[in-house]
Amino acid sequence: MFRRLTSFDEAKRVINEKLKLPVLGVEEVPLLEAYNRVLGEKVVSTLDIPPFNRSIVDGYAVKAEDTFGAEENQPAKLAVRGVVSVGEPPEVKVGKGESAEIVTGAPIPEGADAVVMVEDTDRDGDELRVFRAVTRDGNIMKQGTDIKKGETALEAGRVLGSSEIGVLAALGLTMVKVFKVPVVAVLSTGAEVTEPGKELPAGKIYDINAYSLSTAVRKSGGKPVYLGVVPDDEVALRNALERALASADVVMTSGGVSVGPHDLTPQIVNSLGEPGVLLSGIAVKPGKPTTVALVGKKPVFSMPGHPTSALLLFHLLARPVIQRMAGRPTTEAKTVKAVAAARMFSAKGRRTFVMVTLKQNKRNGFVAEPVATGASGAITTLAKADGYLEIPANHQFVDAGEEVVVSLLKDTLVS
Amino acid sequence: MFRRLTSFDEAKRVINEKLKLPVLGVEEVPLLEAYNRVLGEKVVSTLDIPPFNRSIVDGYAVKAEDTFGAEENQPAKLAVRGVVSVGEPPEVKVGKGESAEIVTGAPIPEGADAVVMVEDTDRDGDELRVFRAVTRDGNIMKQGTDIKKGETALEAGRVLGSSEIGVLAALGLTMVKVFKVPVVAVLSTGAEVTEPGKELPAGKIYDINAYSLSTAVRKSGGKPVYLGVVPDDEVALRNALERALASADVVMTSGGVSVGPHDLTPQIVNSLGEPGVLLSGIAVKPGKPTTVALVGKKPVFSMPGHPTSALLLFHLLARPVIQRMAGRPTTEAKTVKAVAAARMFSAKGRRTFVMVTLKQNKRNGFVAEPVATGASGAITTLAKADGYLEIPANHQFVDAGEEVVVSLLKDTLVS
Repeated sequence: MFRRLTSFDEAKRVINEKLKLPVLGVEEVPLLEAYNRVLGEKVVSTLDIPPFNRSIVDGYAVKAEDTFGAEENQPAKLAVRGVVSVGEPPEVKVGKGESAEIVTGAPIPEGADAVVMVEDTDRDGDELRVFRAVTRDGNIMKQGTDIKKGETALEAGRVLGSSEIGVLAALGLTMVKVFKVPVVAVLSTGAEVTEPGKELPAGKIYDINAYSLSTAVRKSGGKPVYLGVVPDDEVALRNALERALASADVVMTSGGVSVGPHDLTPQIVNSLGEPGVLLSGIAVKPGKPTTVALVGKKPVFSMPGHPTSALLLFHLLARPVIQRMAGRPTTEAKTVKAVAAARMFSAKGRRTFVMVTLKQNKRNGFVAEPVATGASGAITTLAKADGYLEIPANHQFVDAGEEVVVSLLKDTLVS
Repeated sequence: MFRRLTSFDEAKRVINEKLKLPVLGVEEVPLLEAYNRVLGEKVVSTLDIPPFNRSIVDGYAVKAEDTFGAEENQPAKLAVRGVVSVGEPPEVKVGKGESAEIVTGAPIPEGADAVVMVEDTDRDGDELRVFRAVTRDGNIMKQGTDIKKGETALEAGRVLGSSEIGVLAALGLTMVKVFKVPVVAVLSTGAEVTEPGKELPAGKIYDINAYSLSTAVRKSGGKPVYLGVVPDDEVALRNALERALASADVVMTSGGVSVGPHDLTPQIVNSLGEPGVLLSGIAVKPGKPTTVALVGKKPVFSMPGHPTSALLLFHLLARPVIQRMAGRPTTEAKTVKAVAAARMFSAKGRRTFVMVTLKQNKRNGFVAEPVATGASGAITTLAKADGYLEIPANHQFVDAGEEVVVSLLKDTLVS
């Protein structure tokens, strides 16, 4: 079963179609904790902003018509009737021929319909001379001009950064409804791996994937639940997957169960519920054994065991699914152009991804140098690779000196 | 006091020199919680990785010299002595003329010094024919070739992403020492603002800055402590600042105390301790009233009251300081090129930053349209501005159609 390799484009298409899952609902969180969450509902303002007509300059609140015709050598003369304080309802009223001292942000007093800037005035006791005319509503920000009561301030789906959280504060909110974060159970399989923190038995290495994939989940807007290394047998894996499915929205395994003649993971996953395995075996290198399934409404990803391959396939296939479930815009990897430092070959008939490091060249461009993923160490590759480039299935190689597009696995390179 | 405006370049220079503060020390956190933290010490491996010689293919462990001369039509003939399981110490030994079945990742059994790939063999019961010679160490990853015991795996200062956390897991670690996060007390001043969540008194508006700046602090790798709106008088502000300095590593205020003829904030800040105010009044627009001080080892930033200006000045001046205290690489804002949609004027003699929105044009480029920050609403500007462009102090304007560089305030635009 599951022997035909699916092409990479077909795999993406199936995932886009079959794993287009709805968001998981909304929850209310304190606005101060809402950074990088996704707004779960349209926010409509319950107040006019500003809530009153306010001055946008320091100066004097006046009746505009009292200043008409005022010029440098023919000032309008007004009486100063008092002061309007910022943050308080005005106590003074402005009648014909009158004015009131006012500062930026203070409410316009009754009777006034404009503010003359202090630079355009001269004051002597309670007598004010105005050297420049001001139009009606001049230097006033009218009630509701920033946002009107009943108007939409932010649409659902907006990722909350400093500006958005500032906007919600302006509406007087301290709590905000955001989309729930998808919970992703992460576990590793394979007889050769043991959990970090435990003693390392002879013949084993420490598991990397449950840690690196948990971190990738967090970065994609999911909440990882670390389930560690599952013992290497069918019953243990089945039990672990059933527990994971009961408590999480997405399940992610890596590595394969090594008992029996073939990899058991796809068969076990397929027996857990409908519709079951959607893809098993993808024509990519690395990552051929990747399996993607759907159990009820819960995606199950079985990633390859090699740490760099697992992380790469996560970025290519799983990240967009998690982002969509989180109500988050799906982000493509950022890319940079670079020059290939060496000839890099593709695997026959498979879309090939080559891990590369990037170095700045003299002309302020980048040079992409391949980091082998197979024979070479998991750690060396993980620690060094800045990104990857793609070689199409029908291309034999990318030549040294050719321009290539490198998709970044880290964000620090682009400025 | 503090009347001369400091040029923007001089302000940056003073901040770089006087606020070059040491990191705040290290703390230990669970590796699974360490995403986006900064490694606080060099991590040296306490083990060889791999911890044993391991096969990198599926096939047969052999003595290489037994295969020398083997070809398609002249195979070497070996006896199969047993199987090496993955994840367990080998029970079988390989003598002259012998072999042992082995899978990828399994330890090389005693006596063997190479692995022939299964594709290059043919097996009949316990008899193996090898059709291709293999060199000594062929298809073996030797103990410690990925990383040697005592070797540095990661340097201090590395920001921990999926790859780095994977590397630390490979070393068997579950806890990691990271730099402490700078605690930043954030408070707002001004008689016109009241805290979100409270009833809005007549003449007041809701405070935006303590929320938007707290979020910006979080985004920069600091831990915000929200202190809300401080009552509008000298004693209250002094008390609030003293409390903030006692409990935080950095203090950030915005707005100004409006009592008295002049802005009191710089004078109060200056009286809190040595060396005191470093800059008060910067030749930029917006942001002229910005004050930067140092009290002991603690930076105090007093930002302008206008929300967009406060956020802009945070990015320009405060963010690099917080990042340095966090041991984090200081990031410049990401930039994109765009075409100016309209003529934008500079403020006489001041470095001018114009908030803009970006729209994609037909040729896949961007058009930058100004969003006025002064008269127009705080909310509208905050919600709309994608970034800002700079006009040098000695330039009168940027003309419509001119190419400009826009520094992004949001990350979602670049892919």
